[in-house]
Amino acid sequence: EVDEERLIETMEEQAEIGATDDGGLHRLTLSDDDERIRDWLREEMEELGLDVRVDAFGNMFGRREGTEDLDTVLLGSHLDSQPYGGIYDGALGVVAALEFVRGLEEEGIETAHPVEVVNWTNEEGSRYQPAMQGSGVWAGVHDIDEQYDQTDEDGNRFEDELERIGYKGDVPAEPTEEYEAYLELHIEQGPYLEEGDHDVGVVTGIVGFTWGAITYHGEADHTGPTPMEYRSDALVAAADVITQIRRIPGTLGERTVGSTGYIDAKPNSINIIPGEVTFTWGFRDPDDEIVEEAYQRVLAEAEAAAEREGVDWEWEERMRAPAVEFADQCVEAVAGAADDAGYDARRIFSGAGHDATHMTEHMDTGMVFAVSENGKSHSESEYTSWEDCHAAVTTYVNAAYELATE
Amino acid sequence: EVDEERLIETMEEQAEIGATDDGGLHRLTLSDDDERIRDWLREEMEELGLDVRVDAFGNMFGRREGTEDLDTVLLGSHLDSQPYGGIYDGALGVVAALEFVRGLEEEGIETAHPVEVVNWTNEEGSRYQPAMQGSGVWAGVHDIDEQYDQTDEDGNRFEDELERIGYKGDVPAEPTEEYEAYLELHIEQGPYLEEGDHDVGVVTGIVGFTWGAITYHGEADHTGPTPMEYRSDALVAAADVITQIRRIPGTLGERTVGSTGYIDAKPNSINIIPGEVTFTWGFRDPDDEIVEEAYQRVLAEAEAAAEREGVDWEWEERMRAPAVEFADQCVEAVAGAADDAGYDARRIFSGAGHDATHMTEHMDTGMVFAVSENGKSHSESEYTSWEDCHAAVTTYVNAAYELATE
Ligand SMILES: NC(=O)NCCC(=O)O
Ligand SMILES: NC(=O)NCCC(=O)O
Repeated sequence: EVDEERLIETMEEQAEIGATDDGGLHRLTLSDDDERIRDWLREEMEELGLDVRVDAFGNMFGRREGTEDLDTVLLGSHLDSQPYGGIYDGALGVVAALEFVRGLEEEGIETAHPVEVVNWTNEEGSRYQPAMQGSGVWAGVHDIDEQYDQTDEDGNRFEDELERIGYKGDVPAEPTEEYEAYLELHIEQGPYLEEGDHDVGVVTGIVGFTWGAITYHGEADHTGPTPMEYRSDALVAAADVITQIRRIPGTLGERTVGSTGYIDAKPNSINIIPGEVTFTWGFRDPDDEIVEEAYQRVLAEAEAAAEREGVDWEWEERMRAPAVEFADQCVEAVAGAADDAGYDARRIFSGAGHDATHMTEHMDTGMVFAVSENGKSHSESEYTSWEDCHAAVTTYVNAAYELATE
Repeated sequence: EVDEERLIETMEEQAEIGATDDGGLHRLTLSDDDERIRDWLREEMEELGLDVRVDAFGNMFGRREGTEDLDTVLLGSHLDSQPYGGIYDGALGVVAALEFVRGLEEEGIETAHPVEVVNWTNEEGSRYQPAMQGSGVWAGVHDIDEQYDQTDEDGNRFEDELERIGYKGDVPAEPTEEYEAYLELHIEQGPYLEEGDHDVGVVTGIVGFTWGAITYHGEADHTGPTPMEYRSDALVAAADVITQIRRIPGTLGERTVGSTGYIDAKPNSINIIPGEVTFTWGFRDPDDEIVEEAYQRVLAEAEAAAEREGVDWEWEERMRAPAVEFADQCVEAVAGAADDAGYDARRIFSGAGHDATHMTEHMDTGMVFAVSENGKSHSESEYTSWEDCHAAVTTYVNAAYELATE
């Protein structure tokens, strides 16, 4: 049983830290507001009697011992947000894990397995790439020193920012014990649950993806007296590839998506031919081979555009994550919990990346999705009704209980 | 006779104010460095005994009386620069006008016509549009109050910035007497003089142009779980139009050019579908009808792209200047001066805009072009050899003398 009033209160409380004027959240990783929300979480966890630790990459854990010598069940998500993003993304999953512990405390229940609540560092991948960075370092997928050296668009080093907000902890960023399972709740961020009128989603896996950035080096010059055939226009080359990124998915899988989210042109003056343009690609698909194909295709398009426009180019892949399938144990725990509560649940493959991806390297993993109205997220108009939040958290809490006690 | 040493010294002196690390100039209009270069000019003019006045739009004039009751000859250009632009653009023209007066002073020569040196406010049009703004207001082409209200990309109002740097003068920004002629020296900014191995250019007119900005309003959403057919991607629509802007000139005149110099995407995050994108167009041609045709075409392309991507759009034309032809009196004075000095001069139609455009409304107008190496400008690698500077200034000074004494 999850207390809906308390759930709403906790959600509203967290949403105040980094709130935007339009009801969204601007709580970028390692920002001052990230420091504040971390302080808030530490207090919440301490009040619940959890033993709090912070690892060297800023991942925060709160531990509650079990009654038996069994592997730990890990529960959580992330508290960072996109620029001008929504208040549910990530936060609802951390609040759900807190609600689970709160329920145990209220009822005086002990679990056979130890339980840990986790808040992963930089899940969003907006300020620093890759996304799911903290969980990836912890899982051993990324080298911590390489990730410390990442810089944001203003040149701020990751490690310096982590120290600045006081969240470079002293525990190694790696699993220091055995884990039984990881369970994460997240909003769907896509349209399928709402379209099918479902109450909750039983997630069966996560798409794979490639992210990267291309930079064209042309020649800044005057837009007036420079004849068209003398130009090396970095922006025209970029625009050509951006339209291709829109078209490539249509020639690949049914669920392939491709986008450019970021572009920066220099010197960005109405009467200067852009001399340097950096822009990003992102492709996703449930099939790793299709992701690889999209990656090859965008590089081929980038090279063709560079030749057409006579510009130099360089690129870097900033993230590659394989598609993952979740463990039966977890999928069935979630499906069973939804069923027991009388919810209409739908099995669904996630089109967004989640920290859960990296957990599959070390333990059985599963996820619960809450309904996203209009499928919107990464936007201030992201919305999940309190009723849908409650259905997902109820499913989550009962599935977690099953995993922690079985 | 122009003293080459002194010319170089003066050019180097002005280039220190707003100098970039890579030998260029970053002296945006109404910036602190614009204030400094104006202070420098005021001092130079006062030292030459000129009577200095600043008008309500910041245009600076330095007057030297003539011996007869004749109309004034106006000489000058602009001291503002592009972002990371070059040290010659504009500045060489103001320095040439100063050199003319310096020569008169040294030789103790009086002219029949009064002479004024002018530095126009915001010729570049990068920080605030339109370009040639100060000369346009002065000539009565633009309404001063509308121009005061222009804002830069950070929202700073033009008039506030003009007051901030202390250059909102008390003289009305309009011709307060009769003018005989305007003569301006500028670097070519195109490749033709160098390609033909010419020493100097005799400018016969200036292309017309249209500038504007288009904003697409799509929907910010997640780049992963949002199916391709659900998207309203403002950046894909913009990219489509940018590639068309590159192609339109090829279907119009021989000298038509078209470019996008500026783009801004929001919220600019690798995993958010861009919700709002603003970008610019610029088209030029010696034929006003072709400029109009390009304008119609870009709006048609913009509408088609909006429909394809399902985004809303708005646009504004930020500048429209007609093509102009210069007066015989001035063209012949320049051609004669080049000839007399033994230079190989070429007649040329300017592909860049100049304050001279607006002067044609009130007086006979002409221009001298200095050779631009590789035709480059609006870039730190803009370059004109001192020899070519000297040839152009010598031509200019002698043509100005002809106009001021005849
Ligand atoms: N769930 C989520 O929005 N994660 C951020 C990384 C991604 O773009 O998938
Ligand atoms: N000459 C020059 O660069 N003027 C700036 C306005 C333009 O883009 O033509």
